[in-house]
Amino acid sequence: MVSSRGAINRTSAARYDIDGLLAAIDGVPTVTDPVAVRRRSRDFFWYSPILNQQLAAKSADILVAPRDEADVVRVAAACARLRIPLTVRAGGTGNYGQAVPLEGGVLLDINSLNVVEWHKPGVIRVQAGAKMHDIDALTRPAGFELRMHPSTKRSATIGGFVAGGSGGIGSVTYGGLREPGNILAARIVTAEEEPRVIELRGDAAQKINRAYGTTGIITALEMPLAPAWPWIDLIITFDDFFEAMRFGYDVALADGVIKKLLTPMIWPIPANFPALKAHIRDGKSVVFAMIAQPSLETFKSILGDRGTITYEVAHDDSPNVVPLYEYTWNHTTLHWLKQDRTITYLQCLFPHERVIESVREMWAMFPDEVLPHTEFIRFGGRVTCSALPIVRYRNPERLNEIIALHEQHGVMIANPHVFTLEDGSRHKRADADQAGYKAEVDPYGLLNPGKMRSYVPVRT
Amino acid sequence: MVSSRGAINRTSAARYDIDGLLAAIDGVPTVTDPVAVRRRSRDFFWYSPILNQQLAAKSADILVAPRDEADVVRVAAACARLRIPLTVRAGGTGNYGQAVPLEGGVLLDINSLNVVEWHKPGVIRVQAGAKMHDIDALTRPAGFELRMHPSTKRSATIGGFVAGGSGGIGSVTYGGLREPGNILAARIVTAEEEPRVIELRGDAAQKINRAYGTTGIITALEMPLAPAWPWIDLIITFDDFFEAMRFGYDVALADGVIKKLLTPMIWPIPANFPALKAHIRDGKSVVFAMIAQPSLETFKSILGDRGTITYEVAHDDSPNVVPLYEYTWNHTTLHWLKQDRTITYLQCLFPHERVIESVREMWAMFPDEVLPHTEFIRFGGRVTCSALPIVRYRNPERLNEIIALHEQHGVMIANPHVFTLEDGSRHKRADADQAGYKAEVDPYGLLNPGKMRSYVPVRT
Repeated sequence: MVSSRGAINRTSAARYDIDGLLAAIDGVPTVTDPVAVRRRSRDFFWYSPILNQQLAAKSADILVAPRDEADVVRVAAACARLRIPLTVRAGGTGNYGQAVPLEGGVLLDINSLNVVEWHKPGVIRVQAGAKMHDIDALTRPAGFELRMHPSTKRSATIGGFVAGGSGGIGSVTYGGLREPGNILAARIVTAEEEPRVIELRGDAAQKINRAYGTTGIITALEMPLAPAWPWIDLIITFDDFFEAMRFGYDVALADGVIKKLLTPMIWPIPANFPALKAHIRDGKSVVFAMIAQPSLETFKSILGDRGTITYEVAHDDSPNVVPLYEYTWNHTTLHWLKQDRTITYLQCLFPHERVIESVREMWAMFPDEVLPHTEFIRFGGRVTCSALPIVRYRNPERLNEIIALHEQHGVMIANPHVFTLEDGSRHKRADADQAGYKAEVDPYGLLNPGKMRSYVPVRT
Repeated sequence: MVSSRGAINRTSAARYDIDGLLAAIDGVPTVTDPVAVRRRSRDFFWYSPILNQQLAAKSADILVAPRDEADVVRVAAACARLRIPLTVRAGGTGNYGQAVPLEGGVLLDINSLNVVEWHKPGVIRVQAGAKMHDIDALTRPAGFELRMHPSTKRSATIGGFVAGGSGGIGSVTYGGLREPGNILAARIVTAEEEPRVIELRGDAAQKINRAYGTTGIITALEMPLAPAWPWIDLIITFDDFFEAMRFGYDVALADGVIKKLLTPMIWPIPANFPALKAHIRDGKSVVFAMIAQPSLETFKSILGDRGTITYEVAHDDSPNVVPLYEYTWNHTTLHWLKQDRTITYLQCLFPHERVIESVREMWAMFPDEVLPHTEFIRFGGRVTCSALPIVRYRNPERLNEIIALHEQHGVMIANPHVFTLEDGSRHKRADADQAGYKAEVDPYGLLNPGKMRSYVPVRT
């Protein structure tokens, strides 16, 4: 008997000349065991019941793990010549199948490309497979750290974040990756018979931002660094969620308060954090925050007697410590999913000129169905909030109805239940001609095919 | 013959028991020469033709220069007992007569109170008479500097800035002194027979912010520090002033660009900067900017071909170098006044939701009469711009008409042609009960009398 898993791989393998590839890239580490390849072909798309159905069976045919950029060039050349799809994967912490190969082929595991080329005050140049946690550990003794990171910092890579993420912890100060200056430069390898290595600087670097690796294979990034303040992790409880919102908004607007995270969550979301039980109060909404130590007194002045601080600990970034930020952004969803797989989530952006009113409007529209978990951020220079609300899932039709109702009321949705760039990213993307650029660097449409669904290969 | 100058002092002296004061503060340095005292009783109020008339003849009776806080306590006690007015003065760089004693008495020169009590990453505790330039020079080797300073940084003291200023270079990132966290604490001495020394922390510190020394004698301040980036001073020329405005606004909104100054000025304002002649172009409007070196490339990306960089030099904070910021904020006005004393200025705050439209509206309303010089700042967490436009002065009535027309069109004015807190400061002040606090710390109304005009002494 052949397992269905094996069958998938054999079918794909029949489509592509994997033997030809192996001969062409002799010496580059590979994995061909179908079970191992399929396991690595997944990410955290299972947060979405819809994507879970669509993507569960997808797998690459072979995993290739380049040791350096020269290996990447060889693999890209071979894939172009043999017309084999190539999907880049690193930490695999995405939630929309960013690294899932829809059409099989090569899964390019860049985890070994993790060399720091150089760093100086305010800037680091690093290979794309470097883990964000390692970058911070390296630069912090010099007083610097990455401006922002996802809640998966302990396992995510910088290349994966730039290619598949948008912002996170730190975006309350610096905005998202889409803001000018938050990606300084990228080096890419093109998917051509004779691959070019191209440096994209300034505006041009936006061509690879949140493009899921469809617009070139990112091998190195130049990223801005922020001052590494001594952060204080805080939990504050509130009788009323909208009091938590107002407090968070006040702090977000306080330019004199140095901050990295401001996360209001309505009860009962915090009930799903058993490890934090001692600092959670039944029935109380919360704000989770990271505040620079010198701003702590001001933070407490702004709080006054509106809420109660139940947790106040110096942030510890040691690898073996679970940080507070692993209860925020999409980790919030994960903690609930650990207790209960019937929920899912959305990604919202509220209008900055009426942030709190808009959150309240949505809360009132879906009581007990869409539970607000917001994240204060800067977006285009304005303080606003994004949200990853917990959604009690019924079916795809109701989910789409909820999305439509948000949009009708001025709340932008980056739909995390679709895997294409065009349908999902929306406000999270920068204004760059990614489709036009793809034609230049991926003429055969081999890079993560199917993710930029509007792209028609210019060569075949 | 007795000079009018001498006569003023003798008249005042007759009002107050200066001999009794001298006996009570034996050992504290004093100056009694009327010419010297009168010279020190002035500040830069002459920027205003109106204040110049009102304040030119004002003088203290005696200058007292305490060596330490114990001296301040002795002077305050003697003044309270003898009911002698006490006006604090430091660098004397104010523009509204903040340090001009309206009713004579003691001019308390705190320049000798300049000890740094301590500093650590992000915070400095310093006596009020410390010069801001010296603070930056001290903390910069550790990677820190003051978050903001006036254009008079080279001569202004931190106490004078907090007591009489509002913001300046740095406010494009941190907002003004009124924003929570921009003054961490203040220590004051009360004007009572038995003076108390009071520590005001957090919100409470706002009681002395921009109160011109009417709410206690500030002896020490705890101020937040910012990362000291390597700054680049830039001049960019534009064909059109509103193109300069749009560019400045784009950079102000770019949270990924680290900046300290963004100053658009319409032609012919730059014609008044002869020392910068090589970098100014006839007929061109300009933006003066300070950008962190790691953000320079992004800054230039945002500029594109909209304007031309004519000056790009690493900021040099050496005491003998004239820094670019000495052409911005109210130094802009000074440079024009050096060429032509017929102009004056205003202080505006434009509505953040329609910044550029509002600047254009005012420009169109007063062509060639009110020349826009704007300063991008953060205010209450929003990016907006303030302005110190050059006003071709006709008479007080027309000036008041111009002010009224601004206010009718939603532009807030902090009138720099009045010397009272109530009439002048407006949006620059924080929301603190300064009048109520004055009753607690200055029951006889001796501190800089006449500046908080609504105050009625609770004791006589």
